[in-house]
Amino acid sequence: MNRRQFVQSAASVAGAQAAAPASGTALCLNEDNSHWFFTRAGQVHTRESVASFVDQYAGTQVRELVLSANSQRTSFASKVWDPIWKGYDPQGSDDQPLFRSTTGEARVNARKWVHTAWSLAQQGIDPYAVWIERARKLRLSPWVSMRMNDLHNVDDPESYMHSTFWRQNPQFRRLPWRSVDWRDRAFDFAHDEVRAYHFRLVEEYLERYDIDGLELDWMRFGFHFRPGQEAAGGKLLTEFMRNTRRLADTWGKRRGHRIAIGARVPSRPQTAIDLGMDGALWAREGLIDLLVFTPFWASIETDMPVELWRRLAGDKVILAAGLELLLRPYHAYRPIPMNSIETVRGAAASLLQRGADRVYLFNYMDSQTQMPDAENYPALLRECGRLDTLAGKPRRHVITYSDTLAPGEPAAAQLPQTLSAGQWTSFRLHCGPRLRRAKVRMEVENGPLATVRANGQECTPSTAESGIKPGPQRGFVTWEMPEGAAGRVVLDVQARTAATIHWVEIAGA
Amino acid sequence: MNRRQFVQSAASVAGAQAAAPASGTALCLNEDNSHWFFTRAGQVHTRESVASFVDQYAGTQVRELVLSANSQRTSFASKVWDPIWKGYDPQGSDDQPLFRSTTGEARVNARKWVHTAWSLAQQGIDPYAVWIERARKLRLSPWVSMRMNDLHNVDDPESYMHSTFWRQNPQFRRLPWRSVDWRDRAFDFAHDEVRAYHFRLVEEYLERYDIDGLELDWMRFGFHFRPGQEAAGGKLLTEFMRNTRRLADTWGKRRGHRIAIGARVPSRPQTAIDLGMDGALWAREGLIDLLVFTPFWASIETDMPVELWRRLAGDKVILAAGLELLLRPYHAYRPIPMNSIETVRGAAASLLQRGADRVYLFNYMDSQTQMPDAENYPALLRECGRLDTLAGKPRRHVITYSDTLAPGEPAAAQLPQTLSAGQWTSFRLHCGPRLRRAKVRMEVENGPLATVRANGQECTPSTAESGIKPGPQRGFVTWEMPEGAAGRVVLDVQARTAATIHWVEIAGA
Repeated sequence: MNRRQFVQSAASVAGAQAAAPASGTALCLNEDNSHWFFTRAGQVHTRESVASFVDQYAGTQVRELVLSANSQRTSFASKVWDPIWKGYDPQGSDDQPLFRSTTGEARVNARKWVHTAWSLAQQGIDPYAVWIERARKLRLSPWVSMRMNDLHNVDDPESYMHSTFWRQNPQFRRLPWRSVDWRDRAFDFAHDEVRAYHFRLVEEYLERYDIDGLELDWMRFGFHFRPGQEAAGGKLLTEFMRNTRRLADTWGKRRGHRIAIGARVPSRPQTAIDLGMDGALWAREGLIDLLVFTPFWASIETDMPVELWRRLAGDKVILAAGLELLLRPYHAYRPIPMNSIETVRGAAASLLQRGADRVYLFNYMDSQTQMPDAENYPALLRECGRLDTLAGKPRRHVITYSDTLAPGEPAAAQLPQTLSAGQWTSFRLHCGPRLRRAKVRMEVENGPLATVRANGQECTPSTAESGIKPGPQRGFVTWEMPEGAAGRVVLDVQARTAATIHWVEIAGA
Repeated sequence: MNRRQFVQSAASVAGAQAAAPASGTALCLNEDNSHWFFTRAGQVHTRESVASFVDQYAGTQVRELVLSANSQRTSFASKVWDPIWKGYDPQGSDDQPLFRSTTGEARVNARKWVHTAWSLAQQGIDPYAVWIERARKLRLSPWVSMRMNDLHNVDDPESYMHSTFWRQNPQFRRLPWRSVDWRDRAFDFAHDEVRAYHFRLVEEYLERYDIDGLELDWMRFGFHFRPGQEAAGGKLLTEFMRNTRRLADTWGKRRGHRIAIGARVPSRPQTAIDLGMDGALWAREGLIDLLVFTPFWASIETDMPVELWRRLAGDKVILAAGLELLLRPYHAYRPIPMNSIETVRGAAASLLQRGADRVYLFNYMDSQTQMPDAENYPALLRECGRLDTLAGKPRRHVITYSDTLAPGEPAAAQLPQTLSAGQWTSFRLHCGPRLRRAKVRMEVENGPLATVRANGQECTPSTAESGIKPGPQRGFVTWEMPEGAAGRVVLDVQARTAATIHWVEIAGA
């Protein structure tokens, strides 16, 4: 079976009980483990009111609905890990011990999450089982995602989010000798006990839920070994993936359909390897069916090396390009911009053209954690998974950077760039399929710039633009691209006077 | 045939006329196209005096003697390209037109090169033919290397080094609209005429010389297409490599032995692809037998991703890790240090352990362009190609950076790093096989540092060291590593007071 056949048939193999989703490349949508519980708090829930959450994704390009069900605690009544409501007194005040270290709005949201999840458990409703069942009925492929090393709130050791196991075992942390960085307090998966503790939840997921696939989300938060121990550690994670694959195969036989395994790993292959997450090897070994390469969180990464992933991971795996909600030209950029449908279209068009089988939406939820142009959410779900539905629509290709680095790996970012008068510099970005009309936009401090060339062709100064969202408060300086743009574009830029460039993009249709 | 068998048998297949070189990993030595002519000027040469140059490499670990025979002109009497002496008047003064734009010592050396090459041609001696013959006799594998886009002196359009074709065809340059950077004046291989012009020299090499292999040196100087056109251009280079492979096969049949093809490409796979030099693809397609990944010139690159190259290029190609003579912690570091035998041992031990089949020495010649500790040249040739001969000898693993970037690719370097009081940072380096005794050395401006940990283990402050070559003028601050060091090492470093770190290495035995 070649990749195309596999990609088109994987869902039908996996979801044998239900009609197959539409063929072709499409979207994975990750629903995080708290969002629904926050945003649906204060209501009396029934199975139907829970299930109806899924309905909005029916008939869209969403193919895999990936339900994240735990951070350090689970949002369901786990028998092997602490549920999020452990220690919760439903009659108690907001100042009860569980929430005491959490303050302000965070405390309000915490209680909403905890209380909603607790209430459902009291009613005997497992929301994940309900969503999985509804997804199947609606021809969506239901997956569960397990966060493997979640570090939310670890700067507050008393936070309601933390597991007993994490609290009681500081000796299992990644940097037991330091705690200046939240990543220092991640679990160190070199310890047998840590891997065994996490495998118990893998077992529970496979036993508890009749899913098409189980994703191991190694990118929450992406640091699983002591600095310098990642090569040895990576072998342990590969073994962990082997055990997961084996167990999923066993359950697949019992359930009468294949249970796929997915993994989320860092955006660039060398960094993934250097952090012990050798997703390409896992794909080559047949341990995973879905490989998601992604930045962590600080920014969408628009120029991920899809072609290199394909070469390394082979043709049999479904390659998913992971998108995040924030969009920064560089890490210190302020205020932090967020993606809109036009910037998502840009990233999706480029990554799909470069060979991604899926666009994977992380933190693109239906409320709260969402695009500021929330009115475009239905369109996002119907356009951004396939090149044919993206064709001709306005889109923006924005230069960003990689937010995930192995320990000691030097950071690299194209922006900002400060030029002296007359100095040249270059920028590179990828524009996907041809934009017939296209322009270059830059945020320039001081300036002006003298010349902008795109792949050697001189661009024409155009009217400055302001008020574009996302976009710089000082607005854009803009050049028309007489020949449009396609694929890889290198911009050669010369400053007339001293200038600093903060933002670079190509926009068009 | 698996890789190991191939690696061990390649030389005997190629050099069927002579006894095979000793098996096992070893060295490639590149002799550049001017060095011999400069340094052996002013002598009356015979075939024997020419041939004897090769003798110093007999019985060493040098396996492929790679003779670079051209830049824009050839150092032999080419029938298809300009020889270096074109326009030379042997009776004329040093101020004759050929040398007029060249000044000072450069003019003296230019004339030495030109005159020596011209004299040999007058005598009917082709030095490359002589060296090839002698190499075979001495069980060395003779290769010729063709520089594909040499840019020495292009800031002086009148320089004696330039070809008529380059001078007369400015329209074939990479950036015809700009000439602020020497790379702007490289040939643009997108032009049919440029590829045809270069292929004529490929043809001549294969016809003229009975070699074991022909290397196409795409890293002199590494920029062959207009910015942004490298993806399309890369397909043209791949086709060029196919044509070269085909012609070499034809000549191999005539000569009764396989003629190998080699290529030099940038140090990191993505950058190589992004510059149109898809060496991994060439290896997978069987177009090349030897793949050299290398920095350009500004610094040796001690941490090249050998494992990633292997995965991408496959098991059938000989992977050679290219070393350069300079050694900089970062690009602006001054004065520019040069490698010594201890730093070469470090790089070689690491790169060989990571899977390189060869250590490829570029600019490690027997005089002038050489290690400052020239007395160690014989040892270099006898130690640095194999792990068993490196074992137990003092070596230094120095952090450097990548000097070759695709247009717009952001630079990344670990050094220098400026820390505020109490701030932590990390460095990563690779130390190859275990060093039983090891220490961390840093050049620290201001300071002191509070803590140094290696893979989590605390290091012990030791006596400061000065006078070490290569090394900083202000000397090293040193820590003992109680557990020694091996493979990947991450250093976690905390500043006590504000400090800038300029140099980081691990030294040991």
